[in-house]
Amino acid sequence: MITECELRSHFIDNVDKKVNCQIGDEYKMQITQEFDGGNIIVLTGSSAEEICLEIRSDQSSNFFQWFYFRLSGAKDKVCQIRILNAARAAYPDGFRNYRICYSYDRECWMRHDTNLIDGVLSVDFVSEHDSVYFAYFAPYSMDRHHGLIAEAQTVDHCSHQLLGQTLDGQDLDLLRFSAKSDASEQDDRKQCWFIARQHPGETMAEWWMEGAIRKLLDVQDSLTREILKTCDLYLIPNMNPDGSRRGHLRTNAVGRNLNREWVNPTIESAPEVFLAKQAMMRTGVDFFLDIHGDESLPYCFIAGTEGLSSWTPTHQSQLDYYRGQLATLNPDFQTEFGYPVKNPGEANMSMSTTQTAMLYDCLAMTLEMPFKDTAATPDPIFGWSPLRSTRLAESCLQAMIDYLHWNAKIYA
Amino acid sequence: MITECELRSHFIDNVDKKVNCQIGDEYKMQITQEFDGGNIIVLTGSSAEEICLEIRSDQSSNFFQWFYFRLSGAKDKVCQIRILNAARAAYPDGFRNYRICYSYDRECWMRHDTNLIDGVLSVDFVSEHDSVYFAYFAPYSMDRHHGLIAEAQTVDHCSHQLLGQTLDGQDLDLLRFSAKSDASEQDDRKQCWFIARQHPGETMAEWWMEGAIRKLLDVQDSLTREILKTCDLYLIPNMNPDGSRRGHLRTNAVGRNLNREWVNPTIESAPEVFLAKQAMMRTGVDFFLDIHGDESLPYCFIAGTEGLSSWTPTHQSQLDYYRGQLATLNPDFQTEFGYPVKNPGEANMSMSTTQTAMLYDCLAMTLEMPFKDTAATPDPIFGWSPLRSTRLAESCLQAMIDYLHWNAKIYA
Amino acid sequence: MITECELRSHFIDNVDKKVNCQIGDEYKMQITQEFDGGNIIVLTGSSAEEICLEIRSDQSSNFFQWFYFRLSGAKDKVCQIRILNAARAAYPDGFRNYRICYSYDRECWMRHDTNLIDGVLSVDFVSEHDSVYFAYFAPYSMDRHHGLIAEAQTVDHCSHQLLGQTLDGQDLDLLRFSAKSDASEQDDRKQCWFIARQHPGETMAEWWMEGAIRKLLDVQDSLTREILKTCDLYLIPNMNPDGSRRGHLRTNAVGRNLNREWVNPTIESAPEVFLAKQAMMRTGVDFFLDIHGDESLPYCFIAGTEGLSSWTPTHQSQLDYYRGQLATLNPDFQTEFGYPVKNPGEANMSMSTTQTAMLYDCLAMTLEMPFKDTAATPDPIFGWSPLRSTRLAESCLQAMIDYLHWNAKIYA
Amino acid sequence: MITECELRSHFIDNVDKKVNCQIGDEYKMQITQEFDGGNIIVLTGSSAEEICLEIRSDQSSNFFQWFYFRLSGAKDKVCQIRILNAARAAYPDGFRNYRICYSYDRECWMRHDTNLIDGVLSVDFVSEHDSVYFAYFAPYSMDRHHGLIAEAQTVDHCSHQLLGQTLDGQDLDLLRFSAKSDASEQDDRKQCWFIARQHPGETMAEWWMEGAIRKLLDVQDSLTREILKTCDLYLIPNMNPDGSRRGHLRTNAVGRNLNREWVNPTIESAPEVFLAKQAMMRTGVDFFLDIHGDESLPYCFIAGTEGLSSWTPTHQSQLDYYRGQLATLNPDFQTEFGYPVKNPGEANMSMSTTQTAMLYDCLAMTLEMPFKDTAATPDPIFGWSPLRSTRLAESCLQAMIDYLHWNAKIYA
Repeated sequence: MITECELRSHFIDNVDKKVNCQIGDEYKMQITQEFDGGNIIVLTGSSAEEICLEIRSDQSSNFFQWFYFRLSGAKDKVCQIRILNAARAAYPDGFRNYRICYSYDRECWMRHDTNLIDGVLSVDFVSEHDSVYFAYFAPYSMDRHHGLIAEAQTVDHCSHQLLGQTLDGQDLDLLRFSAKSDASEQDDRKQCWFIARQHPGETMAEWWMEGAIRKLLDVQDSLTREILKTCDLYLIPNMNPDGSRRGHLRTNAVGRNLNREWVNPTIESAPEVFLAKQAMMRTGVDFFLDIHGDESLPYCFIAGTEGLSSWTPTHQSQLDYYRGQLATLNPDFQTEFGYPVKNPGEANMSMSTTQTAMLYDCLAMTLEMPFKDTAATPDPIFGWSPLRSTRLAESCLQAMIDYLHWNAKIYA
Repeated sequence: MITECELRSHFIDNVDKKVNCQIGDEYKMQITQEFDGGNIIVLTGSSAEEICLEIRSDQSSNFFQWFYFRLSGAKDKVCQIRILNAARAAYPDGFRNYRICYSYDRECWMRHDTNLIDGVLSVDFVSEHDSVYFAYFAPYSMDRHHGLIAEAQTVDHCSHQLLGQTLDGQDLDLLRFSAKSDASEQDDRKQCWFIARQHPGETMAEWWMEGAIRKLLDVQDSLTREILKTCDLYLIPNMNPDGSRRGHLRTNAVGRNLNREWVNPTIESAPEVFLAKQAMMRTGVDFFLDIHGDESLPYCFIAGTEGLSSWTPTHQSQLDYYRGQLATLNPDFQTEFGYPVKNPGEANMSMSTTQTAMLYDCLAMTLEMPFKDTAATPDPIFGWSPLRSTRLAESCLQAMIDYLHWNAKIYA
Repeated sequence: MITECELRSHFIDNVDKKVNCQIGDEYKMQITQEFDGGNIIVLTGSSAEEICLEIRSDQSSNFFQWFYFRLSGAKDKVCQIRILNAARAAYPDGFRNYRICYSYDRECWMRHDTNLIDGVLSVDFVSEHDSVYFAYFAPYSMDRHHGLIAEAQTVDHCSHQLLGQTLDGQDLDLLRFSAKSDASEQDDRKQCWFIARQHPGETMAEWWMEGAIRKLLDVQDSLTREILKTCDLYLIPNMNPDGSRRGHLRTNAVGRNLNREWVNPTIESAPEVFLAKQAMMRTGVDFFLDIHGDESLPYCFIAGTEGLSSWTPTHQSQLDYYRGQLATLNPDFQTEFGYPVKNPGEANMSMSTTQTAMLYDCLAMTLEMPFKDTAATPDPIFGWSPLRSTRLAESCLQAMIDYLHWNAKIYA
Repeated sequence: MITECELRSHFIDNVDKKVNCQIGDEYKMQITQEFDGGNIIVLTGSSAEEICLEIRSDQSSNFFQWFYFRLSGAKDKVCQIRILNAARAAYPDGFRNYRICYSYDRECWMRHDTNLIDGVLSVDFVSEHDSVYFAYFAPYSMDRHHGLIAEAQTVDHCSHQLLGQTLDGQDLDLLRFSAKSDASEQDDRKQCWFIARQHPGETMAEWWMEGAIRKLLDVQDSLTREILKTCDLYLIPNMNPDGSRRGHLRTNAVGRNLNREWVNPTIESAPEVFLAKQAMMRTGVDFFLDIHGDESLPYCFIAGTEGLSSWTPTHQSQLDYYRGQLATLNPDFQTEFGYPVKNPGEANMSMSTTQTAMLYDCLAMTLEMPFKDTAATPDPIFGWSPLRSTRLAESCLQAMIDYLHWNAKIYA
């Protein structure tokens, strides 16, 4: 029997119930997700204390873990929200000790405890306002993306380049920061590449980009001036607009995990990688960082390309230098925990970093930020957050110029 | 021969050209529209000086006039943008003496001259930056809509009610402002309704709503405190989310002009009107204002419901009072120009105002703002603008409380 | 015996106690006022519950009522602050039903109840933070004044003119707003003058000025554009910098009430009026408004110059029109309550309005805002406030242009 | 003959000229300084091209170099401003290759070239607006100081303590940041002290404080959370309010250089130092940083207390670690250039750092920022700036926690 909790999936089956309330009645609770990045399926629920949901899989894929929905009509009601298919998510560990992100105003995203019992993720929540948004991590909408690109390119030393289109027809945007006046001029400027959000559910990666872009726009900042003296920077803030808009965790519009498409990307199935790889070829690459979020590990860390058969002690020392410098610069970053290191020759060559390291013999790394929080420097209110992502970006830029100077001195 | 201007429609026909540029080449120009509210079709063009476009019709409809697109790769290039089907737009007069809206940063929307020759609207433009957006009027995205609703409902005297869903599954949002603590309490509070953007291309209507909402949230404002003493206010800031997201001018997802659906709206073809009309029935209506934009006339004006057979001198004096007061309060509003007045009995009863006036015997009006500018108080840089829409909203609220006081005194 | 409350006046007598606290002790409470606009004298007090203060008189004058001080070391302590000489203040009625202004951050000024018993004004207060400021009204510092002038004059149609110096050597600043390009050009532009804060303790007058200036700077505003079409505006945002900085209620550095100096001001005793009057003579005056605060009356109102022997029905209708229009435009303004009207011939000719009306035969008025709050539109949290002062300023400008148009039509 | 340039000093001699302009005349140019921190003397000048000024000495002192004044009535005029006594300033080298700070709006302070010829500092300047401010460095007013203190203390983990009064009766403010709940609780929290602006003309020192305070208030920042875990921080953002308000370079109200008063400060001549030193005694000191600006050297650097007879290799390694870490964290800081190092036993014990190092055997350092710019990382528009001062402060806090961790590990 459905009483307090009248959810949208019912409306679909039962047109008579499509009307939300009767005269004199209070508005009923609803859960909805038809907006940029939205993802949830509403199952039958018998009351506010038993709201049963499922996360929808990425299109043409079995991956799922990203969710984003609005609960309406909930003010002061005692709710239990249950995600029934949590155990089958891409990274079930990601829901262990996970604190859900919620927001009333869509600006400030806070954290709330969850329980993971018998594969069901449940949240006991009493909303302070009529409506509240829940998400796996603070969302980053395509609208904000467009605003970020548009605003950045109005500054002199930043240019926008439209690389091409995705399968859904969206634009793939590149920002280039350079103080060099003449494009044809021959010089030894370092070509530094940053890409983010190959996995669209890892929204912290685009928050990272926002931090990097704001830093690079600020020529009152001495670090920025120093970077622009010797580097051209290329940023693709969102490698996967289709997955982002569709509310995917890991794949593009046709179910491809872009970070497994770097060997031979095609315009038909992974145009995002095709276009990015081609653009990189035009400039060459001296430094490469691919920005990600990790569902399970409560750490910021960097994965290198140790699995390449061409890996040398020099490569190792470069990687060590960058990671060490970043740990020095930012208390949220550490070098102790991370992914298991592969042996030489065992590299998965379909990833952005391995391909790029191989093609350009440059330092190429994957940066991982937690969906949860850092174990050593936790924030009890916000957990890992957009703000901390932006600040890590600033440190990454600083570590980059330190690395480039160090490298020039050591390996000149 | 296509040289400088490589446009997206070609990519669709010609996959080999989907890649935007070659090594060493500059990025080519592109026109794209795959974002919230985007609308343009790119036709064959031979050069930057001859970019030929068409506006896409609303889904299942012949209406078109709203456009919104991005031109990329255009920095410093002399462009002529031509909209070939301007003469067949819903309101061809709307393009006469029209100045197009453009923005580099998507925040600040300025105006640029156009020419209308032989039914083609053309714009001669040299972009100061790589990319520039053009639109019929400053867009108001669904993302901004969601932010507006979410932020508003966190304030005590504002509540959010989710009325139901559109045909595309989007939410239809209502904001209620009331200082009354207990919903069941009997009193003589006035029930004041405002709806906007039945026609989704009339984005100034939602900018108007943003102004009204910000005013109503501000309890430091004496006017707001005075309004909240005697009124409950109901605002539907966007009556047509589907048309808005799809980039329509006038209709919803199935081609219905919502302002012709008020007699007997159905949940299948015009759920937006069905839900709004039903919600109004629950509260009753003492005052009703439907916010629109007019494509042709360079005036702010109000249309009444003189065509009702029940129209009386009392109704006329109420309408006159409101309009007069608004003209006193805001220099952008005037009472001289507007639509021809219908004779009693000639009313189109399918409109929101006529239906509402008939059902509740209340003052029900249509507010029209120009797409162009006001003739008497023009702004050479911005034309009619989001800012002026928000300020008119404040004046409309003030005129409302003045009207209610006056009416209580005169017709008590 | 002095225990908890170690106040500054004691330090002056007792150097050994000048040190605020001993090792291990908590910091003692203190009341201090040595900052821009500060005014208080600390008398002997025996405890936090009995902090005895006096307001200092204006230099060379008996006037006093303005106070402004900081209470430090007060967190969570139950305090009673008593102003012993309240009954001898310039307007003892001003402390009846008065709610004191306080602020923790110097940005947000709230209100707190007071009691007036046997001529002593007392405040029972428990501070939420270590330090809290109290003032008669939200202060407006000279630093903010300088920032306001500096920022305004960077806009094209605003110019700054330094009229001369006060007796303390401070600058007397004039802002001129005009869209006219050539100063020598003959035209019929109206010369509109606004002066504020002849009485320095009436800080709401400079908040009013800030509102007027921000409106006049905003050329996106249709009202501003309309005003600039036909008027040149002259604003002296602070007529009395010396009294302002010294923490005076009504007089300048040598005890002169500037609004009694307009007959024959001298450079030695009232240079502020001398310079203003001379500057007005250079332009002529078509409209004049002098901005004040009233200590006692809970109303916004306007006083005219009915006491002039040259007063005519035309003058009366002009005054009535302006006041009526302002009441229409702003709910905080009213026309029912105000000062008693003088009979013709009884005018005090030493005031700014009477002199100006006589010299230029123009509409010259005194605007009064309450120190307390408006009776009809009270704000329980902020009372009469800086924000409401700024909004009233906007309405006054609108009423001015309405008046000028009306006057041109009626008396052309 | 005085023509275009009518300056204030003349007015003092010649009352007839006190009126700034005649009917029909343009306003004449004036130079004024009667505001917080103002300092200039106007000498006779014959034209706009020859404005002759002198800097006023600190009260009861021969020190001078700080200047701050407004030039009015200057729009579009070709001016040459000459400071005649530049060669006798405290640090004549400070005017070599010096670029003067100027601002139109008092918010944005830019730089302009100067010439130093025959001991006269001259500036050729054409003002874009009526009025322009010039200063030795971007000023930091007492009003801003009060706002900073007031705002900070409203945050939970920040408390304000009023240490006592200066000779002019102003308050000496201390901010304490601590996450410790109970003041009596025994623990091993590090007591870290920061003081700034002993020399009031070194305003960058208070900009530095603003940066440090904003960082310490931000508990979303991981660094801040880490610092608050183990440290209590004490900041005196302005050690010399009297010198600041009076427009001094180096001394307090009675001409004392506070940084030469630390041996035996008296309440009569250096109460600022007396009160600070006493407050430090109550807490003990584990880390001490005294913030300064250097007139001559184009570097950020740190001076230690090598001249102490108790100086050891351990002290040296601590100093080296901190400086090295700071250089790593901030590109504006360097370790190559600075003051000559004293030999053990040659220390000037009257300084804050030597006294503090001796009394508490802690790391005590003087941070110097340039008035000019850094040689290695110059900013052509702003030079050394408020923004860069705030960012250096953030790095100093980070270097502090790094130092404390390192020190605990090495010397535990």
